[in-house]
Amino acid sequence: MIVLGIDPGTAITGYGVVAGERMAQPRLIECGVIRTRARDPLPSRLQEIHAGIVELIQRHRPDALSIEDVFYARNVRTTIVLGHARGVILLAGANAGITIAEYPPAEIKKAVVGTGAATKEQIQFMVMRLLRLKSSPEPADASDGVAAALAHILGARIPDLDAATSLGTRPALRSQA
Amino acid sequence: MIVLGIDPGTAITGYGVVAGERMAQPRLIECGVIRTRARDPLPSRLQEIHAGIVELIQRHRPDALSIEDVFYARNVRTTIVLGHARGVILLAGANAGITIAEYPPAEIKKAVVGTGAATKEQIQFMVMRLLRLKSSPEPADASDGVAAALAHILGARIPDLDAATSLGTRPALRSQA
Repeated sequence: MIVLGIDPGTAITGYGVVAGERMAQPRLIECGVIRTRARDPLPSRLQEIHAGIVELIQRHRPDALSIEDVFYARNVRTTIVLGHARGVILLAGANAGITIAEYPPAEIKKAVVGTGAATKEQIQFMVMRLLRLKSSPEPADASDGVAAALAHILGARIPDLDAATSLGTRPALRSQA
Repeated sequence: MIVLGIDPGTAITGYGVVAGERMAQPRLIECGVIRTRARDPLPSRLQEIHAGIVELIQRHRPDALSIEDVFYARNVRTTIVLGHARGVILLAGANAGITIAEYPPAEIKKAVVGTGAATKEQIQFMVMRLLRLKSSPEPADASDGVAAALAHILGARIPDLDAATSLGTRPALRSQA
């Protein structure tokens, strides 16, 4: 299974393409960021994000697109603009006919690090370890994209460290195709 | 000049295609709504909205796309989802290479009715009068799409009734290409 993981953003959208099955060693195929310029109008920036994701899908033919699900707002305007970026990313996935899985940020952290309260540094460290890389993907947005892909691949494999009683394999992720 | 006006929504996106110049009688070419089903996943709904707007642009070859600019939130989740819909609409305009103008709801009301505090009924009435229709476009979302198109065409023509001292032709609209 090849998964395209995405950490959406209007300025920087991080992505990671990961190959793997639940019980096998996952392998990083590619990761990086799509950057847009703040001085460009929003429609042009959305065009660049959409074109970038379409290109990645065409090149890697992923089985699934895994993306952070953001439905809270620290800053309302920023979050609404982020919704625009997510919109064109989801469109690219839907038009390609691939499975789309949306995970809240805390579930991605829990799947990769074992706790929904993980820091950015912990995520970068675990992404490096899980994929047996010599250094963690830079910038952090790329690492977050890889984490989204890993979360979809790992699924219920990671025990839930947040729940003191649980050492089992209770599913930590919900997939919304 | 042909303008495609859009009132974006995840469930119902209203649109109106209007031909006109600043000083000439504007003419309604087509109006209607793109409906999506609440039970369908968001990516599919975005796909339908995007495909609908692409089809309208291909059929009418508008010079501009005029759309409501919504950056406040009565309900944060609803507004973020609305951002997704706006994202795929702006993408359709950008990919077609047409001018994109975004107006806050109050500026559309002011341009069409003369006051930013106009009711839905007042907008429907003025849309009917300005376009010399026998009845107002239904549903109200279609009327709001037509109002967005009219706002872009009328531009500075309507005097600003909100400012007691103003009977001049002060521009009521800002265009963000």
